[in-house]
Amino acid sequence: LNFENRKARVIVTLSLIEKKKLRSLLTKKGRESRREFLAEGVRLLEESIRWHRLPRKVYYCRARSNERLETLINQFDKEAVPIQPISTIELNQISDTLAGQGIIALFDIPQHNLDKAVISDAKMILLLDNISDPGNAGTLIRSALAFGIDLVLTTSNAVEIYNPKVVRSSAGAMFGLPVLAIEPTALVRLKKEENFRVLAADLRGETVDAALSHLKEKDNLILAIGAEASGLTASILKLADIRIRIPHEKAVESLNAAVAGSIIMKELYNRRTVDKR
Amino acid sequence: LNFENRKARVIVTLSLIEKKKLRSLLTKKGRESRREFLAEGVRLLEESIRWHRLPRKVYYCRARSNERLETLINQFDKEAVPIQPISTIELNQISDTLAGQGIIALFDIPQHNLDKAVISDAKMILLLDNISDPGNAGTLIRSALAFGIDLVLTTSNAVEIYNPKVVRSSAGAMFGLPVLAIEPTALVRLKKEENFRVLAADLRGETVDAALSHLKEKDNLILAIGAEASGLTASILKLADIRIRIPHEKAVESLNAAVAGSIIMKELYNRRTVDKR
Repeated sequence: LNFENRKARVIVTLSLIEKKKLRSLLTKKGRESRREFLAEGVRLLEESIRWHRLPRKVYYCRARSNERLETLINQFDKEAVPIQPISTIELNQISDTLAGQGIIALFDIPQHNLDKAVISDAKMILLLDNISDPGNAGTLIRSALAFGIDLVLTTSNAVEIYNPKVVRSSAGAMFGLPVLAIEPTALVRLKKEENFRVLAADLRGETVDAALSHLKEKDNLILAIGAEASGLTASILKLADIRIRIPHEKAVESLNAAVAGSIIMKELYNRRTVDKR
Repeated sequence: LNFENRKARVIVTLSLIEKKKLRSLLTKKGRESRREFLAEGVRLLEESIRWHRLPRKVYYCRARSNERLETLINQFDKEAVPIQPISTIELNQISDTLAGQGIIALFDIPQHNLDKAVISDAKMILLLDNISDPGNAGTLIRSALAFGIDLVLTTSNAVEIYNPKVVRSSAGAMFGLPVLAIEPTALVRLKKEENFRVLAADLRGETVDAALSHLKEKDNLILAIGAEASGLTASILKLADIRIRIPHEKAVESLNAAVAGSIIMKELYNRRTVDKR
């Protein structure tokens, strides 16, 4: 009995209220009502420090500690972020993965607005429409940061940006550029008032080379990527100035949406960086 | 009590032995010992018909039926594939997804060998090394078929090809080209005896344009893609004739492995198809 008791003893350091709050952030409803989200893992949280997007609080598990994790904890400590040690059991209760990396952090959802300040800095925008797979959405955000996109917008039928799987597959890129959900009407206004050209990925479009030849170097661009099966929604496709497709063998109906979007972003990036030389 | 009984009554049409067998295929151990795997969903199984890679047996759920599913069932029937109706509960028991599409099929794992017949047809090979994420592995197989790769090889430290998540994210592409696991020694032999050049994706490599300029049109190629964090294993990297990287902003440490591999495949494909014009 004594032995059993000892095994069952765990260091419980979270209050029930705090645990309940953190667990509610595993759901979309919880994230939207609290305007907070969780990000997990050493690599992801190293990016939050690099981009100075600091969390409200960090939870970490001493039992899972290693040198890299300790370094990260020290960095958060220097930045005066509150740090709370928790047990492995507690970590598993607030994590959406089975094999966590011993650290999880609570962030405020940034209250970006599509205002002049955000827009006037943006020359290249990626629009995620209809992208329901969280892995694809996160990967597209990662490629966006890699290929010099200034701003990522999502429509209401795309996966929610602060879904833990989106956060994870962005590999921290979401800390490096503004990502915000918009209404379709905002897009129409953006195109008209701010003079953006809309480039839409579409299986019936022109080839990459042909499509990009219509662009001028100074053009402000919105690249719209839709779902693999259904493509872009009709209202977004209607806004398109140029439709673009990636030539490939007919053996495959379409490319993965994250792959297709990333290839087009890479072509746009090449074009601009080569032009500068 | 009567009402309860009626609710509990389901059409059980699978024998316990068959159900146990199918459930064992949800594990790597089960797939490897039985040399069988499951593929699920309408779109995926339409591809199996298109590529004439027919299953041993099809299980489907009448309650989930629709026109597209009925058409598919009729096609399997014409091809003399045994068709077994099962209940929704049974379908959920043998599926690895929560929201199945009403159809699942049992396939033999093809017994490819790296023999002369497979090799002599292959000019372009994709090698997946260290790729542990099943979504990335499946996406790379899909891009491989799209960009004219003839053969996909995987090393023993990559995810197993018949993992349901790999099958699903390949979107049926795995029915369209041979995919097989090999030993590292086989790769050394392949390079020497069959005169392949090895192109390795590596963050310290040359840019895409520079790397591809070293290639001749007639070259037989092996493109090796490794994991994002750790890269290629040392033994594979040692075999590389050319190391290749995709230029991008320093804001991001690396691209997603499926994105990086697909971009390089697309560049190789462009080069060959443009050369043909």
